[in-house]
Amino acid sequence: MISLDYILEALETGETTSEALTLEALDRARDPAGEGGRAFLSLYEEAAPVVARASDMVREAGVPQGPLAGLPISIKDLFDVRGEVTKAGSRVLEDAEPAADDAPVVKRLRAAGAVLVGRTNMTEFAFSGLGLNPHYGTPLNPYDRETGRIPGGSSSGAAVSVTDGMAVAAIGSDTGGSVRIPAAMCGLTGFKPTARRVPTTGAAPLSWSLDSVGALAPTVACCTLLDSVLAGEEPSPLPRVSIEGLRLAVSQTLLLDGLDETVARSFGRAARLIADAGARLFETPLEPFGEIASANSLGGFPGAESYAWHRPLIVGRSDEYDPRVAARITRGAEQSAADFLDLQAFRKDLVGRVERELSAFDAVICPTVPVVPPELAPLEEDDELFAKTNLLVLRNPTAVNMMDGCAISIPCHRLGDPPVGLMLFAPAMHDRRLLAVARAVERVLAPLREE
Amino acid sequence: MISLDYILEALETGETTSEALTLEALDRARDPAGEGGRAFLSLYEEAAPVVARASDMVREAGVPQGPLAGLPISIKDLFDVRGEVTKAGSRVLEDAEPAADDAPVVKRLRAAGAVLVGRTNMTEFAFSGLGLNPHYGTPLNPYDRETGRIPGGSSSGAAVSVTDGMAVAAIGSDTGGSVRIPAAMCGLTGFKPTARRVPTTGAAPLSWSLDSVGALAPTVACCTLLDSVLAGEEPSPLPRVSIEGLRLAVSQTLLLDGLDETVARSFGRAARLIADAGARLFETPLEPFGEIASANSLGGFPGAESYAWHRPLIVGRSDEYDPRVAARITRGAEQSAADFLDLQAFRKDLVGRVERELSAFDAVICPTVPVVPPELAPLEEDDELFAKTNLLVLRNPTAVNMMDGCAISIPCHRLGDPPVGLMLFAPAMHDRRLLAVARAVERVLAPLREE
Repeated sequence: MISLDYILEALETGETTSEALTLEALDRARDPAGEGGRAFLSLYEEAAPVVARASDMVREAGVPQGPLAGLPISIKDLFDVRGEVTKAGSRVLEDAEPAADDAPVVKRLRAAGAVLVGRTNMTEFAFSGLGLNPHYGTPLNPYDRETGRIPGGSSSGAAVSVTDGMAVAAIGSDTGGSVRIPAAMCGLTGFKPTARRVPTTGAAPLSWSLDSVGALAPTVACCTLLDSVLAGEEPSPLPRVSIEGLRLAVSQTLLLDGLDETVARSFGRAARLIADAGARLFETPLEPFGEIASANSLGGFPGAESYAWHRPLIVGRSDEYDPRVAARITRGAEQSAADFLDLQAFRKDLVGRVERELSAFDAVICPTVPVVPPELAPLEEDDELFAKTNLLVLRNPTAVNMMDGCAISIPCHRLGDPPVGLMLFAPAMHDRRLLAVARAVERVLAPLREE
Repeated sequence: MISLDYILEALETGETTSEALTLEALDRARDPAGEGGRAFLSLYEEAAPVVARASDMVREAGVPQGPLAGLPISIKDLFDVRGEVTKAGSRVLEDAEPAADDAPVVKRLRAAGAVLVGRTNMTEFAFSGLGLNPHYGTPLNPYDRETGRIPGGSSSGAAVSVTDGMAVAAIGSDTGGSVRIPAAMCGLTGFKPTARRVPTTGAAPLSWSLDSVGALAPTVACCTLLDSVLAGEEPSPLPRVSIEGLRLAVSQTLLLDGLDETVARSFGRAARLIADAGARLFETPLEPFGEIASANSLGGFPGAESYAWHRPLIVGRSDEYDPRVAARITRGAEQSAADFLDLQAFRKDLVGRVERELSAFDAVICPTVPVVPPELAPLEEDDELFAKTNLLVLRNPTAVNMMDGCAISIPCHRLGDPPVGLMLFAPAMHDRRLLAVARAVERVLAPLREE
């Protein structure tokens, strides 16, 4: 995986072309020995090379192009693309109407010059953090592929499209960790912006209250560039932030519970590197996070909101759904309006309390996911194991969606070890500052990635 | 001149191609018998056809593109284009540093798929409403070309590039009427948005307080589309507004003074058509407009602000300036800080009073310019005539820049008559509503344009 700035430089100097990059990405995606068949639900085999060639022509003529000009990028299957059916990883939407228009984020990617290579596989309707999809198969984690481990979800194909060179970056969505979990599990960087900054229009919804749109890519700088495009902002380089004197919070509630040995070791090592470099770590209670699980006991926002959206569809056709997804959606029927309003009130109060507590810090750090990527086969077979693992994997990321924050997962494992993600998060609208802090931390962790 | 929606349709159906449109535009601009040599300061003769071909390729592959995909559009010489010197119609900036980056509006045009055909001529530094440029010549008004009339300014080349088929639309700037005056004088539609809606970064400034960026094009719908792109908004069709019951104000101060016979007749006829169609016209005092001239007696915002910008350049090199421009800039040296602050206070008060008075109406209507396009030669020779004519031509449009409003000029003359513009204007941020009202008025005036 190469950072986007190097690829853009190679395009600028003529060392490579968009057509070459795009054909290579497509070749890898089509390789029957690879994961492409499970990472992508469709490929733009004819259109992408044409767009790439057009970009090369314009570049050769010396005409300025957008900030992503010529980069082959994948998009998650839930974004509307004009003239195509948005299935969101399902079978039940296969006979739906084609989208009348591109989603705003798809328009922004195209306007920025991106070459869309295909639509990536995902958990059906984005409804789990593990990445399993019984309809289209589950792309395998790039780590320990022989054993066969989950890639994390729901943006499963997004992550594998990048790790396996089928795209230089991927656009996903994150309602409870769906960008950050696969990024953490696959050794990528994944950014979940403050939800309101990027339009979710034209993306099949999981939860209107919590949905956000973000990128999975090799580095913090890559995510920053992609985020600017998605948010409709002018890209600009991040300010250099020194690690020295940064005030990083470590939550004493929930986020460090139940770490497996590998994650505990990797996270501990990363925290020491960060502290040794001069950042100050502060234990902070963050007690409101302990209240989230019970507040969500009736299915939370995704339960109520997905049921509202699926109700006309799931009645009579629930057998076409992934049964595990159908069960979680239909549970939303049991939530009363008063329950839902209680949940909204709980969230509002939580956001206020957490923001007040975090105003003393630059960011909170924790492991993105408490466990290393589990094996796929047992999860396919065992509903109970699936449910338990899913809750555990979603736990930390979901806390940030509940507090309406922004968050980034960066790799913190040693090269060759199982992938572990370090999550940094901050309150709403602190995105740019968080990215700058994350880049300072990324620099400190760089030695871990060296041979 | 064909409306952009028809051209976009013809591109969509394959009836024409962007390459064909672009080559035709360039051919016309290069025709030695035409006005191209004075309408453009530079042409993208090599780059534009490549960008057009690339757009055609992508279109043929069925890949969605931006809302201006394939349209040959001209830009006024004052916008930064990466790697090029921004001269703003001057000689004195010929040895300036090339722009490091495209202006944001140029980026937005490119991202929307526009094919930039060239940089258009203008009054030096945008400093007059007539369009004369002693360095590069003055493109002639399309009306009565034998006599030789001014095109209006400062976006002189912008207007002529469209009337003469060298571009399908043009982007200009408007500080005191520089979009609306050439639009009115050349029979085009010109829209001046509320200044804050479109970034002026990367455009050589005339007055930071008053500068705005807008389009000159055949119709209200064209201007609406272009304005959405310039403002970074998602284009969408205007709502249909019925002319019946619209409340249109007619100012009893300043705006109807000193009309020549042709303008008085055309405006009167248009007002009757509008009233006959069911709109209600109300005389309203708008007394604050009577105070503008004396408030500006020390040179106004353009005087003080252009002097601040030019001071390092004009000292020692004033002989390289158009003497009429240099005189107006150097006058700004005489304004004290207290004078400038008085002017700011006057403007703030004026905006409040005018907005309160206009809250009863949908828009104000008046002639954009009180006189038909004058002959060029006498204005070139006679400084006093030039100064007097310039003040008269700028008078009505400038009132809208002072009140921080939005305004549009649409043609209201009979086919074959001298061009006359009807200006509609409204307070700040009423842009979309004003455009919808202007389209209703445009429809009522359509019979005037028929043979």
